Amino acid sequence: MADNESLRWKIGRRKKLLHTPIYDVLSQHETAPNGVEGDYIAIKAPDWAIVIPETEKDFLMVKQFRHSEGDVTVEFPGGVVDPGEKPEDAAARELREETGCEAEIVALGALNPNPALFTNRVHVFLAKDPHRVGDLSLDPDELLNFFPVPKAEVIAGMGSAPYVNALMGTALFLWMRAKEMY
Amino acid sequence: MADNESLRWKIGRRKKLLHTPIYDVLSQHETAPNGVEGDYIAIKAPDWAIVIPETEKDFLMVKQFRHSEGDVTVEFPGGVVDPGEKPEDAAARELREETGCEAEIVALGALNPNPALFTNRVHVFLAKDPHRVGDLSLDPDELLNFFPVPKAEVIAGMGSAPYVNALMGTALFLWMRAKEMY
Repeated sequence: MADNESLRWKIGRRKKLLHTPIYDVLSQHETAPNGVEGDYIAIKAPDWAIVIPETEKDFLMVKQFRHSEGDVTVEFPGGVVDPGEKPEDAAARELREETGCEAEIVALGALNPNPALFTNRVHVFLAKDPHRVGDLSLDPDELLNFFPVPKAEVIAGMGSAPYVNALMGTALFLWMRAKEMY
Repeated sequence: MADNESLRWKIGRRKKLLHTPIYDVLSQHETAPNGVEGDYIAIKAPDWAIVIPETEKDFLMVKQFRHSEGDVTVEFPGGVVDPGEKPEDAAARELREETGCEAEIVALGALNPNPALFTNRVHVFLAKDPHRVGDLSLDPDELLNFFPVPKAEVIAGMGSAPYVNALMGTALFLWMRAKEMY
């Protein structure tokens, strides 16, 4: 097997191709160990947080319209980690905003949403025994609601509408591993 | 719980903000059921395929530099589904190109990599008992190699370098569900 250095490209100058409210698209000029050169694009985005609110029998799930899917999906709560915010604090904040609940937050893992395309991390947390402490707190354009779904239903449904978000599949994997379910 | 129609936005005119070799970035003007209007961005990408080559004890994994991560990762083989190509054919082709192997291809599921940002699907397949039939077939800028890794090592390592690709976590979830491992 090749060692890492024989595979590692050198990243040279970066150029911003596009700025949007949720990410920038960069072009990176890179050189391979074998001398091949090329320009590769990278999406520079802030980190994201996903939180799995788990009761004895259910997950608390959020139903909302996803603009790029063009349809309503059902997902674990989550969102963007604010500048300077700790990922676990973002998880607690998103849980509070989207479900009105507080809970003990436990880190399950963090991955790159797609290392070919993104520079950031998605952090996954468990919210143990969430309890309602107040109302939802949503942005004016954030239309959603939350409801409990039996865990077995989410596990069986992942991959079929409305459970189509691949990052929720990753979150479920990390949750199953933490539970030593296999 | 709100019904889907009370959450569903209407997507109006679309404008291309950026064209790249691997995706386009669109701006969509949308109207919410409550009358709120806004512009939302969507990444229009071709579908992707991931294939899990499984032997009795190992997964065949691919090691390569990922340009946006800026580091070497270890992942299941995969790539872009070509225009007009069936996802299962893309999986077989990527397996052949990246490992020199052929295998029985079994569909495990398909999800949106992130319904907030993408319009496409990532299709996940199992490659049962892959057997070597020839050499690798790689693009000039595609530096990678493959090697067997014990399944338990991949499961335990997912979320730590070099196993940082969230889509591989999703793939593992689908694999575990298909195996009824929980």
